[in-house]
Amino acid sequence: MIYLDNAASTQIHEDVLTSMLPYLKEQYGNASSIHRYGRMSRKAIEKARKQIAFLINAEPSEILLTSGGTESNNTVLSGIPVKNIPCNIVTSSIEHDAILEPCKKLSQNGLEIKYLPVDKSGMIDPTELKNNISDNTCLVSIMFGNNEVGTVQKISEISQICHEKKVPFHTDAVQAIGKIPIDVKELGIDLLSISSHKLHGPKGIGALYIKNGIHIDPVILGGGQERGLRSGTENVANIVGFGKACEIAKNNLSENLAYVTKLRDLLIDKVLDEIPEVTLNGDSKSRLPNNAHFTFLGVNGEDLIIKLDEYGIAASTGSACSVNTQRASHVLQAMGFSHEQITGSLRLTLGIFNNEKEIEETVNSLKKIVEELRSVSPFKEKYSFSSKN
Amino acid sequence: MIYLDNAASTQIHEDVLTSMLPYLKEQYGNASSIHRYGRMSRKAIEKARKQIAFLINAEPSEILLTSGGTESNNTVLSGIPVKNIPCNIVTSSIEHDAILEPCKKLSQNGLEIKYLPVDKSGMIDPTELKNNISDNTCLVSIMFGNNEVGTVQKISEISQICHEKKVPFHTDAVQAIGKIPIDVKELGIDLLSISSHKLHGPKGIGALYIKNGIHIDPVILGGGQERGLRSGTENVANIVGFGKACEIAKNNLSENLAYVTKLRDLLIDKVLDEIPEVTLNGDSKSRLPNNAHFTFLGVNGEDLIIKLDEYGIAASTGSACSVNTQRASHVLQAMGFSHEQITGSLRLTLGIFNNEKEIEETVNSLKKIVEELRSVSPFKEKYSFSSKN
Ligand SMILES: Cc1ncc(COP(=O)(O)O)c(C=O)c1O
Ligand SMILES: Cc1ncc(COP(=O)(O)O)c(C=O)c1O
Repeated sequence: MIYLDNAASTQIHEDVLTSMLPYLKEQYGNASSIHRYGRMSRKAIEKARKQIAFLINAEPSEILLTSGGTESNNTVLSGIPVKNIPCNIVTSSIEHDAILEPCKKLSQNGLEIKYLPVDKSGMIDPTELKNNISDNTCLVSIMFGNNEVGTVQKISEISQICHEKKVPFHTDAVQAIGKIPIDVKELGIDLLSISSHKLHGPKGIGALYIKNGIHIDPVILGGGQERGLRSGTENVANIVGFGKACEIAKNNLSENLAYVTKLRDLLIDKVLDEIPEVTLNGDSKSRLPNNAHFTFLGVNGEDLIIKLDEYGIAASTGSACSVNTQRASHVLQAMGFSHEQITGSLRLTLGIFNNEKEIEETVNSLKKIVEELRSVSPFKEKYSFSSKN
Repeated sequence: MIYLDNAASTQIHEDVLTSMLPYLKEQYGNASSIHRYGRMSRKAIEKARKQIAFLINAEPSEILLTSGGTESNNTVLSGIPVKNIPCNIVTSSIEHDAILEPCKKLSQNGLEIKYLPVDKSGMIDPTELKNNISDNTCLVSIMFGNNEVGTVQKISEISQICHEKKVPFHTDAVQAIGKIPIDVKELGIDLLSISSHKLHGPKGIGALYIKNGIHIDPVILGGGQERGLRSGTENVANIVGFGKACEIAKNNLSENLAYVTKLRDLLIDKVLDEIPEVTLNGDSKSRLPNNAHFTFLGVNGEDLIIKLDEYGIAASTGSACSVNTQRASHVLQAMGFSHEQITGSLRLTLGIFNNEKEIEETVNSLKKIVEELRSVSPFKEKYSFSSKN
């Protein structure tokens, strides 16, 4: 199997699993218990918190552990204090559903949500952001790297605008973390969402970076864990694994970045070169190192995935991490894509465990599949597909 | 180490871990992905859902997967539709903080919360419940078995009252599940919270049983997982482990119940017999099979735990699953205990992995420790401690 769906989820790193096992076996204490079983769990959690903080150059006290990226995003949106009424939130039209759906609920509750448009590469315009922030803005939330087309926003510029306007700036960095260097201090980020399973850690665990001094109300209440900000018995094993995954990512960041970027560029070059009537979507430069997102005109992306699966290749249409894969991608819509362009899209997301040989195999299979699907395509006449090779 | 803190958390069953490992290794697909990696994860989740449902005689479609018991409780309290304004919720004064804290927030938001009192064994009076339900009551939430003193409420009677009054009935069964038979249909339960790590499953995963026809609004929004009721990439490995833990619990329920009850009764008899000035707290009959909760007059419970820990015995004061172990137990306060009685309390909670020899060793150590602590107790004069043996 060639796994090219790393934006949806990743393989747990061997060392991550090894680090987790003691906490799935003999060290099962509740971290709130006073006895040594409890203390060992507590210690393990605090070590992991340091590893997570270190990856983004935060303080351990600024790391709130959650059940994943979705909960981190929800925590920001329902936890940010509403100051001026009517309060508003500025976000973008290409956010993940874990931002858009809570926003929808907030707007039903009377908050105003401003969705910034993007250009055809999926980039927001900082000037547009500036113009949309008012005295009533209580939060700006703009994702770091897009989960579908991979476009990376101008985070520095965005954070600077927010600081000038004195509005807290949140970024959903679930897709970017561990892949490109992120220094929350240098970038001036106030709130940042992370998810473990996107960087070779276990699923069901994530974090929210909350800069010291920023106040967030808790969403889940109870025993007062996580300094009252997120109650519930801590998922020690997964927290430990998440910490380890962050440590590994940090230690190998530049090496992995170079490796994956090279693979991605090979994939993009080969696809554009060997398959006719295909476009690369998203920004060609400011882009996640592991993301390749194409439109194959005249082909249905879902058919493509099913065929690829038969060829032993795991891929995805535009959106992952969502059960609504049937729905037309809101990201591509926001980028001004036509229905046909959206329908023909395919996302291939790479990881550190992929290699060149897999890329070559994938392109060969893709070439065959696209040709086959196009030969029965209702759009056959519209585009005169001609094989380049 | 003798582990007697099973109410705080339990050891993962070997077969549970075995069932999880494939999902921590090669089967890392996102359950929402269309390719075979995704489909394998989806299938594993749905199998686990059946196992969980089967334990409580529910339909799989009635099982909502959450990040734990705390989230399950929070989901009920913030998700139950508020009909009549001013709406009220009837609960008890001895609930876990994962009920009490969300209630506190609701009351700040204008809901009326009625906390039923308990008698000195920790039992609520069903008549009292009946008198407190009004047309404005939108929910009754009464826990199944108490996490501190182990008292098991008259759930059948309570659910009958709720049904007569046409009010949905929720029960926090986190401590009872897998230990005593629970049939949601027979007992007439509408909503029920469970947590995996209390029944030899992994931490950070739980469920909420929502009877078909009962409506709950989602708390965490995003990709639309769990039929839109709980978004976030599913924690496949932990869900699989949770399912397995439920299956094992179901298959061994009566056997384990008899085994643990016998151990507990041995512990209680020996402690009451061999140590002077000690009382058993909670209901002597309607009690969780694994709970023994004592008050040793003249002794500080925290000191007791630290000493027991030195002797290699893991125990707890009244409350676990809470970082506020310093705070005087609200459960014992509600039961009318004096400050001294609360201070001197100790909880020993057993599990299927304990044995008679451990009980004997524990009682021997406890005897020594209590004697030692009492010899330096400021209350030495007040109670004339005399060793019975
Ligand atoms: C950009 C982005 N944000 C948030 C999430 C949600 O995180 P999680 O999968 O941990 O719920 C995802 C993917 O799932 C994502 O790609
Ligand atoms: C009665 C009760 N309810 C809820 C919880 C919370 O569940 P979890 O530990 O899964 O957050 C606990 C213990 O932690 C409990 O004992």
